[in-house]
Amino acid sequence: MQPLCRDHPQPQSFDRVLSSMCTRPHPDAVAAATEFLTTNPGDPMTYQSIAKIESKAVNLLADIVGEPTATGYITSGGTESNIQAVHAARNRSATKTPNIVAPESLHFSFNKAATVLNVELRTVPTDEDHRADLTAVENAVDEDTVLVVGVAGSTAYGRVDPIPELTDIAHRVDAVMHVDAAWGGFVLPFTDHAWSFAAGIDSLTIDPHKFGQATIPAGGLLVRDPSLLDELAIETPYLESPTQATLTGTRSGAGVAGALAAMEALWPHGYKETYERTMYLAERLETELSTRGFETVTPHLPLVAADIPRELFTALRSEGWRIATTADGTLRIVCMPHVTQSLCESFLSDLDRLRRAGNSA
Amino acid sequence: MQPLCRDHPQPQSFDRVLSSMCTRPHPDAVAAATEFLTTNPGDPMTYQSIAKIESKAVNLLADIVGEPTATGYITSGGTESNIQAVHAARNRSATKTPNIVAPESLHFSFNKAATVLNVELRTVPTDEDHRADLTAVENAVDEDTVLVVGVAGSTAYGRVDPIPELTDIAHRVDAVMHVDAAWGGFVLPFTDHAWSFAAGIDSLTIDPHKFGQATIPAGGLLVRDPSLLDELAIETPYLESPTQATLTGTRSGAGVAGALAAMEALWPHGYKETYERTMYLAERLETELSTRGFETVTPHLPLVAADIPRELFTALRSEGWRIATTADGTLRIVCMPHVTQSLCESFLSDLDRLRRAGNSA
Repeated sequence: MQPLCRDHPQPQSFDRVLSSMCTRPHPDAVAAATEFLTTNPGDPMTYQSIAKIESKAVNLLADIVGEPTATGYITSGGTESNIQAVHAARNRSATKTPNIVAPESLHFSFNKAATVLNVELRTVPTDEDHRADLTAVENAVDEDTVLVVGVAGSTAYGRVDPIPELTDIAHRVDAVMHVDAAWGGFVLPFTDHAWSFAAGIDSLTIDPHKFGQATIPAGGLLVRDPSLLDELAIETPYLESPTQATLTGTRSGAGVAGALAAMEALWPHGYKETYERTMYLAERLETELSTRGFETVTPHLPLVAADIPRELFTALRSEGWRIATTADGTLRIVCMPHVTQSLCESFLSDLDRLRRAGNSA
Repeated sequence: MQPLCRDHPQPQSFDRVLSSMCTRPHPDAVAAATEFLTTNPGDPMTYQSIAKIESKAVNLLADIVGEPTATGYITSGGTESNIQAVHAARNRSATKTPNIVAPESLHFSFNKAATVLNVELRTVPTDEDHRADLTAVENAVDEDTVLVVGVAGSTAYGRVDPIPELTDIAHRVDAVMHVDAAWGGFVLPFTDHAWSFAAGIDSLTIDPHKFGQATIPAGGLLVRDPSLLDELAIETPYLESPTQATLTGTRSGAGVAGALAAMEALWPHGYKETYERTMYLAERLETELSTRGFETVTPHLPLVAADIPRELFTALRSEGWRIATTADGTLRIVCMPHVTQSLCESFLSDLDRLRRAGNSA
């Protein structure tokens, strides 16, 4: 057995990765993923073990989001979850001209969903705190709106939208209220935000392979009412089971097993510790960047943004920092579990040095 | 580190699995997948090693299908490949009422594609040899046809459609000619069938995680002309790369690395040996089943079908044989690499015993 790395580049470590919403998976997840690497939950009658494991994973996910009777499945990732949520909502409605309404802070997977599903995407502005502007959402919905998106942990600024109010707006026009908690879902249980089924929502995206610390691929889609998932069922004549609600066919048992293992290892105490530690880091970073004179966006979840000059951003990048900006060019740092105090200190130290070098140039 | 299996069902082996189009992955694929378990090619600027590996995997896939300049990507599986092919074809066309034409032997992923993408799916009958009926396809296409499907290794009977003739029909109406070789792609290079870009086609599905003996998830989508893939590009503002053509977002680097490792280990000699051995088994099985008086469908590729009574099928199932039927109830056995001579003999022995027991009941 020749290891791949003999002739090929090795996977890089998570050192200096401040841009990713994914992280180093928990060792139990790695072990479980490896053990179930050759299984396919897309064929549950043939691969019965992994089918049982997926049930357990979905049930545990339901507990984590505070709705033990929620159903769903482990998706290939948040993108599939969001596409399938829009898909189900579209199929459920009779309108021939469906639209979905989302704040401009939405993840680009909704652009994919709208394009693929032939659904009009209406994005509305966010307010000065980067949360959905309720009046704008109210004005954008109509009788053809099939789904309203609320983000719980937005990609750019880690904001949580006013979910209960958005739910009211959605339900008033008989639209599905869908929350995208792909990133936020595993930290939000430890906050006071209203973000999940208790707020009245209908469907939820939550990704084990982000803050859940599972292996890729493991997203999650949960619904309050199983009939919403039924909208997705496609007949599968040659498989031993009659239908499937997934967007993929053959799919990764490794991801499903890794998701269950991570959640079993970390819920609730490990996730709570993660939240507290990474939130603290984000708040410390904000203080440090603000003290240095940069305009910052106060973290609500473990993500901090700061307006640093383009040249400084580029200089940091060329030193090997994997960093990213929001669409308008603001540096955005995601404090995932692999981000440590010393990594942050190292980052600030390099920032200071490059800034001085830039100023004296 | 607690292994998952401590409290959970172990993954079953491939013993007695005669229904699956997936198989035991090559050990090199397992090693590579494990090594790259924590990578995400959906974020190529952050995860640069796996991005390079994906390039190599696509190039090798292009060699295998005989079109070294073909481009594409490693998908989550054949379902995504087929959805994205239809997606690109739909986006490329100006028609507001797009349709796709496919033989009734199509894989159900095209039903998913049509539903999701709001495209009319026109299925046409197959001929007495279970291949696309050219006259019927000819009659079904029109100026709104955006894509014609040819199957190269059909799900039920392992047939290869008349690809060059279908290509002519497709191109006459300016439709994309797409071949679904998800299952057949890694055995067809060793046959005389015309199935790939040399026949004039535009896009191709070929799955490393089927006969390619890679780990799940690893499908493949290849196109002759890169502009077809450009139809899929969605902007990705917060990632360090500007667009992506995939249906998923965050996705499995393990699958990509496993695909490259499997192909490097097995192309061409290992795949050739696999084809010869499994083809021989399928032919032997046909002889054995035919001798026993069952009506059989002669294998063209390593898949054999036989009309056995429903009760015998059920009895075999309850003895642990993972078997499946076609939509019309015909037993269909897929001779994947994990299927051995002795497994076949064991199957026939059980079949004989249960048949005798059934007859004397």
